[in-house]
Amino acid sequence: MEKVVYLDHAATSWPKPPEVVQAMVDAMEHAGANAGRGNHSLAMGSGRVLVRTRSALAELFGVKNAQDIAFTHNTTMSLNMAIHGLLHPGDHVISTMTEHNSVRRPLEYLRKTKGINVDYVKVDSEGQLDLRELGSLFQSRTRMVICSHSSNLLGSILPIGEIGEIARRHKSVFLVDAAQSAGAVDIDVQTMNIDMLAFPGHKGLLGPQGTGGLYISPEVDLEPLMQGGTGSQSENSEQPNIRPDKYEAGTQNGVGIAGLLAGVQKVKSIGTQSIYEHEWGLVQYLMDGLSEIRGITMLGPAAGRERTGLLSFVIEGEEMAQVAHRLDREYGIAVRSGMHCSPLAHQSAGTLESGAVRASVGVSTTREDVETMVNAMKEMFGRR
Amino acid sequence: MEKVVYLDHAATSWPKPPEVVQAMVDAMEHAGANAGRGNHSLAMGSGRVLVRTRSALAELFGVKNAQDIAFTHNTTMSLNMAIHGLLHPGDHVISTMTEHNSVRRPLEYLRKTKGINVDYVKVDSEGQLDLRELGSLFQSRTRMVICSHSSNLLGSILPIGEIGEIARRHKSVFLVDAAQSAGAVDIDVQTMNIDMLAFPGHKGLLGPQGTGGLYISPEVDLEPLMQGGTGSQSENSEQPNIRPDKYEAGTQNGVGIAGLLAGVQKVKSIGTQSIYEHEWGLVQYLMDGLSEIRGITMLGPAAGRERTGLLSFVIEGEEMAQVAHRLDREYGIAVRSGMHCSPLAHQSAGTLESGAVRASVGVSTTREDVETMVNAMKEMFGRR
Repeated sequence: MEKVVYLDHAATSWPKPPEVVQAMVDAMEHAGANAGRGNHSLAMGSGRVLVRTRSALAELFGVKNAQDIAFTHNTTMSLNMAIHGLLHPGDHVISTMTEHNSVRRPLEYLRKTKGINVDYVKVDSEGQLDLRELGSLFQSRTRMVICSHSSNLLGSILPIGEIGEIARRHKSVFLVDAAQSAGAVDIDVQTMNIDMLAFPGHKGLLGPQGTGGLYISPEVDLEPLMQGGTGSQSENSEQPNIRPDKYEAGTQNGVGIAGLLAGVQKVKSIGTQSIYEHEWGLVQYLMDGLSEIRGITMLGPAAGRERTGLLSFVIEGEEMAQVAHRLDREYGIAVRSGMHCSPLAHQSAGTLESGAVRASVGVSTTREDVETMVNAMKEMFGRR
Repeated sequence: MEKVVYLDHAATSWPKPPEVVQAMVDAMEHAGANAGRGNHSLAMGSGRVLVRTRSALAELFGVKNAQDIAFTHNTTMSLNMAIHGLLHPGDHVISTMTEHNSVRRPLEYLRKTKGINVDYVKVDSEGQLDLRELGSLFQSRTRMVICSHSSNLLGSILPIGEIGEIARRHKSVFLVDAAQSAGAVDIDVQTMNIDMLAFPGHKGLLGPQGTGGLYISPEVDLEPLMQGGTGSQSENSEQPNIRPDKYEAGTQNGVGIAGLLAGVQKVKSIGTQSIYEHEWGLVQYLMDGLSEIRGITMLGPAAGRERTGLLSFVIEGEEMAQVAHRLDREYGIAVRSGMHCSPLAHQSAGTLESGAVRASVGVSTTREDVETMVNAMKEMFGRR
C-alpha cells in the first residue's frame, strides 16, 4: 500500500499506537476470557484490565470514584444512556447548535415520543455561544444542559466550566459530549462542574473502535437503557443497583478495553496539554498554508484562537465530495466531506447546502503531512 | 504462563483462532478508519469489512437480505433492542424458564415500567418444555415469544422450529437467543420461522468480544433503542428509516467485526454440523468420565441425547465456588461456578441454592483437555 496521509482523526485516530495493537493481541492470547463472569485466572486477568482501565480514565478526567465510569460501545451509546436515562415527559433541555446527531436525534426522538422540550442555543460562525442567551433559556423544568466540548465541524472549544457553573446554579444536570476533546483537551469533571461525560475510546484516547464510556456523577441516577446479565446478584430479576454493573449489561469488550488502556497510557505519557499544543500548531500551520488557496473559506475560530485539531473549509464553485475524492485518489490524502452528522453546525456556518471538507490531525500527524495537504490543494485549485 | 485447560467456552471462546487475531491486527494497520463516515480509501476498506461480515452471517443463518442484520455490542444489546423495540403497554409475552438474565431482566423491567405481561413456560430437569403448555399460553395480546435456543446452564437444545411454527400460527413475533448455539448448531431463520435472532460474535462464532448482532425480519419493525449518527441522511433530525442504519447508531466496532469475519469464515470452513459433533462427543466423553465421581449430579439432557457443548454439575457436600477455585488453582482448569445469570434454569434444575459448576467445550478443546478435567475431579473427590 502506498503511503497514506491520514487527516481524518476526528472520525477515528489512525494508525493506533503499536502498544495498543500489542495490548489487544496480548489480551486475546493471555487474558481473553470473559471479565466478571468466572473466578478462574483467565477471567480474573480480563477483569483486572477493566479495573485498571477504569482507574486510568478516572485519573485522566478527575473522577473521584472509578466505579462511576461505565464502559459503552461508543459515544453514541453513552449519550443515549444519559439522555434516555434521565429525561421524563415534560422535562426541558438546553442544548446547542453545535451538537452532533448523537445528541440531536435522541432529543428529537424524545420530543416526539415523550413530550420533552428542547432549546438549541445558537452558535456564531466561529462556533461560540452567548452565555447570557444560554442563561436566559432556563425554565422551572430544565432538567438537563447538553453541550459538545468541541464542535466536530468547527473545532471551537466551548467554555464548559462556565456552562457547568450556570447549569449547577439552575440545578440542571450537565452532560458533556467529549467526542472531539477527550485525550486532546484537559477535562476535569470536578472543576468543570460536569455531571455526565460521554467519551469515545477510539479517537483522542487512541484505543480501538467498539470502546467508549460514560461518567455518571454519584448524584445522578439514570434508568439503565438495557438490562441483562452482570455477573452480580444473578438471582435478582432486576438490574443490580450497584455501579458500574447497573449500566454495563452483557459481555464487555475486554479485548478493546485492553487496547484502550494502552491508548490512555500513551495519552498520559505525552500529556493532554502537549497533545493539544501539537495539534493546535499543526492546524495553525494548515490554516496558514490553505489561506493562499483560491476561493477557500475556512470555518470556525480564526487563526491564533484556541481550537481542537480539525479544520473544515469550502472551496467556491467546487463540489466538496469531489474535493475529498480527488485528495484521496490523486494524492492519497484522507479527509472527510459532507455533513459530519452535524447539520445544525453547518446551518450556523452557512454550509448546510454545500457541506464542507474537514481535515483533522492527531498525535501521529506531522508537519510533512500538512505540507502534503497544502501542496495538493495548491495544485488542485491554485493560489489566490 | 503454564498451560491452561480452558473449559469456559460458553462464556467466551478461547483462544481465538490465529486468523481472528491476525484479521484484527490487519484491520488496525490497514483499514482502521471509520466505516461509513468518509469516502476515502481507508474508510471504504473498513466499510467493506462490514459488508462482507454481514453477508457471511446472512449466509450462515439463512438470511435472505444481509441488511436485515444489525451489528451490536453483545447479545444483551441485541435482545434489549428486540424486546424494548417491539413491546407496548399491555402486550403479552411468552418466554421460558431457561432464559438468561439478558431476557428475563428486560422483561421484568418492562413488566414493572410499561405494564407488559409475561408467562415463563417451565422446563423439566433435562431443560425441555412442553409444547402443548406453550401453546396453551397464547392470549389475544401475545405479541412475542422469546426462547433460548440452548440453555446456558443445562445445554438442552429447544425445538426452535416447532416453537416458531406455533408462534407464527398465533401471529406472534418469535425471538431466539442464540447465545449458546450460533456457530455450534445449525440455524436457518427461514425454515425455523425465526423473526429475530440475537447472537454473540465472541462465543461459537469465534470472534472477539464487543461484537454481536440481531437479525430482524423485514416484516418486523422495531423502534430503535438508540438514535445518533449513521453517516446517512445526516441533515435529517430523525433516525433514518433504512436498514441497517436505523439500528446502528454511532461508530461501529470495525476492528472487532474484522475479527468476527475471520471467525465466521473459520466456522464455515469446519462446518456447524462438524463443530456440533465435535463438541457433543467431548461432552459425552466428559459425562462418561464424571459419572464415576463420588457424589456428582450432572444436569441437563441424559447421556446420548442432543445437547450443546456444556455440562453443569453439582457435588454433594461441596461448595461449588470452591470446586471451581480448586480446579483453577490446583490444576489450571478454567470452569465456571455460580448462577450463570440464569436463576430460573437453576430453579428448574433444583440448584438455585447451591449453584453449579459448568464446564464447556469449544472448537479448540481436545480429548486430553477432558481427560485432565476428569482426572482432576477424581483426585479431588474420589470415585463412587
